[in-house]
Amino acid sequence: MKSYREEVWFNAKSRREYINITETVQETINKSGVKEGLCLVNAMHITASVYINDDERGLIKDYDQWLEKLAPHAPVSQYRHNDTGEDNADAHMKRQIMGREVVVAITKGKLDFGPWEQIFYGEFDGRRKKRALIKIIGE
Amino acid sequence: MKSYREEVWFNAKSRREYINITETVQETINKSGVKEGLCLVNAMHITASVYINDDERGLIKDYDQWLEKLAPHAPVSQYRHNDTGEDNADAHMKRQIMGREVVVAITKGKLDFGPWEQIFYGEFDGRRKKRALIKIIGE
Amino acid sequence: MKSYREEVWFNAKSRREYINITETVQETINKSGVKEGLCLVNAMHITASVYINDDERGLIKDYDQWLEKLAPHAPVSQYRHNDTGEDNADAHMKRQIMGREVVVAITKGKLDFGPWEQIFYGEFDGRRKKRALIKIIGE
Repeated sequence: MKSYREEVWFNAKSRREYINITETVQETINKSGVKEGLCLVNAMHITASVYINDDERGLIKDYDQWLEKLAPHAPVSQYRHNDTGEDNADAHMKRQIMGREVVVAITKGKLDFGPWEQIFYGEFDGRRKKRALIKIIGE
Repeated sequence: MKSYREEVWFNAKSRREYINITETVQETINKSGVKEGLCLVNAMHITASVYINDDERGLIKDYDQWLEKLAPHAPVSQYRHNDTGEDNADAHMKRQIMGREVVVAITKGKLDFGPWEQIFYGEFDGRRKKRALIKIIGE
Repeated sequence: MKSYREEVWFNAKSRREYINITETVQETINKSGVKEGLCLVNAMHITASVYINDDERGLIKDYDQWLEKLAPHAPVSQYRHNDTGEDNADAHMKRQIMGREVVVAITKGKLDFGPWEQIFYGEFDGRRKKRALIKIIGE
């Protein structure tokens, strides 16, 4: 069994951002040499997500608005977490909706994907350096 | 390390449907010959989910109503994704709540499950052919 | 390829509880002898979650209140699942928001985590014995 590990760094300019990392994941699979196996991609921070969905500009706007409706940022005083001096409690919730990680199949050295599947890093508390982990196991 | 892959196809008659695929997954594990390992089951489409919960008729109705409350289908004009000619933006959101995939343990050749765990394919934009992926690795 | 399996039992005193199990998972990895691989941690019950987030008292209160807003317990009569004699339909929904499982990377024998990642067992229908599964594969 082979295993391979890589970190991907981000520095989102705004508080919330949605970054397509599909190619980076495929390149990492290429480097790993794994042809059949599983690939875990997870946010290493707890106010960010890795998720799979469509790379369509309208949909990303819809997600952003919908997450803000389900877990509004303001007023920051509504969250006890923000009593610690943070203002990112809402980001911890948005991340739970979108998920921490994806596990994807590797078949013949490729991401084994349906036609529209794209891997995104979803940032909900950006404007600083953060990272995701890619861990690959297989043969 | 062994690996095994299979696709399962669906053609839901209605827009939303919840299909128990537990037996199909167990049969696929049997075919794989894997006794100890992990089994990934994921929707290959981005408006569908694979999730684990109870096969109870009332609960499935509750999920359906609850998802419709959190991410309503109508009016379709509320979503920018639907400006592309689609009417399924809500399905992309429902899928994020219920999740894209499950990863399950295989122990002694069986799904290593608690008493009520059942694997479902949750369709949120049906009435056409769609599929899920089963990928198994182990020994 | 090595594999290792362990169950962790809980008996939450209240209906909802959030228990940090990170050390237990690391100890199980130590016992497994796996240095490079993947570790699946999942609730074996369908009204509980395993999730990764911050061990901060205020945030846990926020999660609890937020989940209650998205999927209220009362009135129990609003859910068809509760017609079966149960009163836990809301717990099945809260669990979908927070997720059933996490998959974490093992690197050099350690949980490969960012600085604040902690693994929690989230109970939404407690006051009885329930369990989570830890399944490890790797080398």
